[in-house]
Amino acid sequence: MSDLLSEKTPIRARHIRPGQGQAVEMKSGELLQIQTLQGKQVADFVAFTQGDTNEYLSTSVTRATNGNIVPQLGMTLYSNRRQGMFEIVEDTVGRHDMLYACCDPIRYENLGAPGHANCREALAEALESYGIGYDRIPSPINWFMNVSIQQRGELEIREPLAEKDDYVVLRALKDVIAAVSACPQDLVPTNGSNPTDLAVRVYRDEPLPPPPGKEDQQESAEYADAVPGPVAATNLTPRPARLRDTAEATVYRVERVDTGMPD
Amino acid sequence: MSDLLSEKTPIRARHIRPGQGQAVEMKSGELLQIQTLQGKQVADFVAFTQGDTNEYLSTSVTRATNGNIVPQLGMTLYSNRRQGMFEIVEDTVGRHDMLYACCDPIRYENLGAPGHANCREALAEALESYGIGYDRIPSPINWFMNVSIQQRGELEIREPLAEKDDYVVLRALKDVIAAVSACPQDLVPTNGSNPTDLAVRVYRDEPLPPPPGKEDQQESAEYADAVPGPVAATNLTPRPARLRDTAEATVYRVERVDTGMPD
Repeated sequence: MSDLLSEKTPIRARHIRPGQGQAVEMKSGELLQIQTLQGKQVADFVAFTQGDTNEYLSTSVTRATNGNIVPQLGMTLYSNRRQGMFEIVEDTVGRHDMLYACCDPIRYENLGAPGHANCREALAEALESYGIGYDRIPSPINWFMNVSIQQRGELEIREPLAEKDDYVVLRALKDVIAAVSACPQDLVPTNGSNPTDLAVRVYRDEPLPPPPGKEDQQESAEYADAVPGPVAATNLTPRPARLRDTAEATVYRVERVDTGMPD
Repeated sequence: MSDLLSEKTPIRARHIRPGQGQAVEMKSGELLQIQTLQGKQVADFVAFTQGDTNEYLSTSVTRATNGNIVPQLGMTLYSNRRQGMFEIVEDTVGRHDMLYACCDPIRYENLGAPGHANCREALAEALESYGIGYDRIPSPINWFMNVSIQQRGELEIREPLAEKDDYVVLRALKDVIAAVSACPQDLVPTNGSNPTDLAVRVYRDEPLPPPPGKEDQQESAEYADAVPGPVAATNLTPRPARLRDTAEATVYRVERVDTGMPD
């Protein structure tokens, strides 16, 4: 479990099955955790500004402003107005994509599977109540998607490096609507050829309660307005931060430091 | 001069100065030539479907459907509905970008040059009469932009490989509104640190007149409704197709073949 989140309880939680999308509202400063429950599952992610959905998370502005094509720890994610929308504050995988479009009906027609569930329609359905339709789904960030770039610019989709319970945590930098779909792609290795469920949780980013002086009294901070969804709001079993550095990805050990959180 | 275009006269032409944008309408089958007149000049390019501007050229769908991040000869450019909008039918450079966002006011603020001319506002101005504003400018294709990707995904902007009079030619696959801006970036090497002018010309893609039997009677096909803009409609001096294959780019020799054009 995340160092940032290990003593907190989510104020919103969603369980997302392959082919489904879910939208959550977040206030500036809140934290969004996106987790693959079985591993090797891609989460397509888009976001809009609350109350002004003409502003949206832009992968091209994010690439340009960061000078990098890979979403990674510490990176700010920018809107089409070049305003910060999120910061990546935790990442247990280190390998994600912001080059690919959502899978859509024609993608599956081309693969000989017309009528297949797809991320673009799932996100449009999740955002319908905000008046955001199919045409307005932006280029997503595809958390956990493992895309390799070859010598001549060729893209190759590989199995995700994400293992069971791996996750990213984003801090919202403004009030946003975030939407996530669990990619149902089972015809190519996008999801290890076996799409599985995601969990999405929103946490307040408040300072933890002061230490009570006794270790056994340190309990989870509970929020009065917590409205857990189908995902149990209890925290998952803590596991140590990992550190891998492979030819394919840098995986960061995430350590909570005093200066890393606002007072 | 292009083999495809060498015997034709443009039906529309635009001269674009750095920081300016121009929109042109094209019918399905027409050809769009985008040319750097002095070399090393980037052309930011966006497009929408005529009469239904919720459909637009999508770089992420184009990358995903082609499985490649580099626009190149023979590639189809797709819309956000995964419909073909253009085919790249000629390319004398072989090095372009579809990763970067347009430069915009905040980009120049960050570079210490507030108020600098920029592509995003130039394109929005060019598209204003179609009701397409600043927020709706999609991620562009940046013709002639030379972006290198490093080991960890870092992007590096280099001088364009395009030399004087280099160009691309796109065939429209549906009726479109295309808009081009001449990037005014003079603070980094995007345009060789010296932005210069572009020419944009639209040609009909009609079969050439049948050979008259005598070579000296083969003259340029003139179209009654040709309305040349500020760019002289006379063709530029023909130059031989080039062929380079470097570590950075593949440059194709373009040869007209009988099967390459509709009858």
